[in-house]
Amino acid sequence: MTGKVFLIGAGPGDPELLTVRAVRRINEADVIVHDRLVSPDIIKLGRPGVRRIPVGKCAGSHPVPQERINDILVELAGEGATVVRLKGGDPFIFGRGSEEAAALRAAGIPVEVVPGITAAQGTAASTGVPLTHRGLATGVRYVTGHRRADEPLDLDWKSLADPDTTLVVYMGAANIGEIASNLIAAGMPRHLPVLAVSEATTPNEQQMRSWLDSIGMDVEAHPMPSPVLFIIGRVADMAVVNDDIIPEAATRASRSFEIIHA
Amino acid sequence: MTGKVFLIGAGPGDPELLTVRAVRRINEADVIVHDRLVSPDIIKLGRPGVRRIPVGKCAGSHPVPQERINDILVELAGEGATVVRLKGGDPFIFGRGSEEAAALRAAGIPVEVVPGITAAQGTAASTGVPLTHRGLATGVRYVTGHRRADEPLDLDWKSLADPDTTLVVYMGAANIGEIASNLIAAGMPRHLPVLAVSEATTPNEQQMRSWLDSIGMDVEAHPMPSPVLFIIGRVADMAVVNDDIIPEAATRASRSFEIIHA
Repeated sequence: MTGKVFLIGAGPGDPELLTVRAVRRINEADVIVHDRLVSPDIIKLGRPGVRRIPVGKCAGSHPVPQERINDILVELAGEGATVVRLKGGDPFIFGRGSEEAAALRAAGIPVEVVPGITAAQGTAASTGVPLTHRGLATGVRYVTGHRRADEPLDLDWKSLADPDTTLVVYMGAANIGEIASNLIAAGMPRHLPVLAVSEATTPNEQQMRSWLDSIGMDVEAHPMPSPVLFIIGRVADMAVVNDDIIPEAATRASRSFEIIHA
Repeated sequence: MTGKVFLIGAGPGDPELLTVRAVRRINEADVIVHDRLVSPDIIKLGRPGVRRIPVGKCAGSHPVPQERINDILVELAGEGATVVRLKGGDPFIFGRGSEEAAALRAAGIPVEVVPGITAAQGTAASTGVPLTHRGLATGVRYVTGHRRADEPLDLDWKSLADPDTTLVVYMGAANIGEIASNLIAAGMPRHLPVLAVSEATTPNEQQMRSWLDSIGMDVEAHPMPSPVLFIIGRVADMAVVNDDIIPEAATRASRSFEIIHA
């Protein structure tokens, strides 16, 4: 009897930002195969005795290659297991979830995808920075700032240099200085606000407010724990200060609220 | 005693795609102020006796103006109520949620924002179309195809015409033909796949697969109930057929699965 795989977005970090379906599916799982970016409070969910298999990369250890992850999922479901594949954020936004879904379908394994709150949305909600706002941003765009090995960043700077669109950069901490320079060279204003947010929606959330022409230096001078998300655009000025938010949220934020260029 | 307002994303339609926090906050509410796009199964959540105030627009009736919605929220919270403001999708993506948050903060009312699964993500999960995918889409972009009165569409076609970025058009059914023509004129391939999805994640979900040069005609010939979301890009070819998905999801999809250009 073939099992099945639920490809589930674990959201940005806060366990309460899981969807109701994600929680239900996690509680039905025989096995949970999870990434490193899924928070410990989420990984510990599930039935007593559920098997947990970490496949994400950690500093100092080698990650499980994508092809091997695909094989693990196919093998487990092939043995009849109900498998939950837990990925940070949303499985279909920078998650390589569609590669796993394709491998599973090719092997005849049924797949259901459960979306998750992506980091941009979690960060927006916890900082008060909207992704769109009348008069400031007519749309929003997500790109990744990660590069493979020594290859150049594969981004279309001319197209990205649109100050009316909020630009969210995932996995960009190592290259944000270069990204910012390229955006300025392509016509973006030097003083466009940038908000860098580390570990958004978790108790360790940290914020750093800067501008396009200084964010590279600022991140170098004040490194933030990963994952770090960058929100570039006029909306980044709308981050709320602690006393504007309700006590529970304020407690979360006040532990770490930091503005370098206040 | 001042109340508070929870600005909550109700997600794309399926009640199970609410976050755990959204459900908890809805169950704490004295009053639920909701949009038309929030599905009836979600609106009926909440404690027995909870007051429900619809403020969205319906065909044939006038919507409550945004300024009046802001005032209603301020008034209710000013009377000490715990208010849940339920918005379709995510409050900070095309939701005007940030305008409501600003009005509330200006009035000294505490606000918490709870993110929701935005329509693009719900649609991606239910159709199997990823928003990013190695080799097909390096990023994703959300725009609105809605225009105010007789004003022209306020979109930067040159910047949008990037075939390496998945383009998701919200509220575009009335203007998709014009949007597609402009994208082609700006350099997008005529045969770029487009997937139109109506009422995604609900039992009424309908899909229509077309191309950039034919989507306008197709939508005119086969109108779909709102809301309709358009996913434009190479990933739109990845929509799964029914027998690839698990029974529960297949039941949802088979009621309505429709491919015009199979």
